[in-house]
Amino acid sequence: MPIIEFHPRRTIEEVEEGNILAPKFGPDSLMPCITTDHQTGEVLMLGWMDANALRLTLETGEAHYFSRSRQTLWRKGANSGLVQHVIEARIDDDQDALWLRVQVAGSGASCHVGYRSCFYRTVPMKNKAGTKLRFTERAKTFDPIATYGDAPNPTQL
Amino acid sequence: MPIIEFHPRRTIEEVEEGNILAPKFGPDSLMPCITTDHQTGEVLMLGWMDANALRLTLETGEAHYFSRSRQTLWRKGANSGLVQHVIEARIDDDQDALWLRVQVAGSGASCHVGYRSCFYRTVPMKNKAGTKLRFTERAKTFDPIATYGDAPNPTQL
Repeated sequence: MPIIEFHPRRTIEEVEEGNILAPKFGPDSLMPCITTDHQTGEVLMLGWMDANALRLTLETGEAHYFSRSRQTLWRKGANSGLVQHVIEARIDDDQDALWLRVQVAGSGASCHVGYRSCFYRTVPMKNKAGTKLRFTERAKTFDPIATYGDAPNPTQL
Repeated sequence: MPIIEFHPRRTIEEVEEGNILAPKFGPDSLMPCITTDHQTGEVLMLGWMDANALRLTLETGEAHYFSRSRQTLWRKGANSGLVQHVIEARIDDDQDALWLRVQVAGSGASCHVGYRSCFYRTVPMKNKAGTKLRFTERAKTFDPIATYGDAPNPTQL
């Protein structure tokens, strides 16, 4: 039994200033989801949700996404054990983006490459040293080969 | 003169584990950008960038986006004065999403509705009280009508 309804988008005022959930998914039926560590505020990943993933996330309290590379529902941690327990979910003004504040199980990592955060590299900017990406994490948190074996890499060129 | 090059995406290993910027934009030529307050870690907004907006952001140190509602380059704060000074930019594993840690000028707000963050409402979840969105900010940081006048609202139904 769903505990929360997805309402129609009737007026801009209701969408922006109201208290009913009226999510908007993109042309690909997906909504971007920002996932942060609920304690440190670090951004762990940017995922995508279809209506089913959003509903399951809200109903179970565990982050579910839609895998664009595999084109299927993805319960985060199903293979790796790195389940994301949702402490708080927030929606943005026009209700087309989600923010999850999570506590990650196990080693605490969220990135398939093995790092804690998917955002493990800084981009050089004006007046700052160098023109190369710089790593912010010194070592991987887990071994992706041991965890995922020969499953296809979700990164696509 | 660009200070940083966008490189071709040659191998997955180079994209994930290398130190060159090889961004990937979606079918709409856009990349999602997560923008957080560099001190509190609060997520302020989820914006979109085309190649030009990304390049201008890195070259000027001020956040530029591509406005999907207006279909044009958008220098954040051009009208409102709420310029976002980029403290750090990070790119994710497969280089198709950006994270900006910013310091916001003026009142410190980033949301066109007048709140500090676009994510000013929590979504109810399993076992938590109620089924309605709950506001996390009690008052608006600025008056959007005084700031934007009768400019079209970017929110679309």
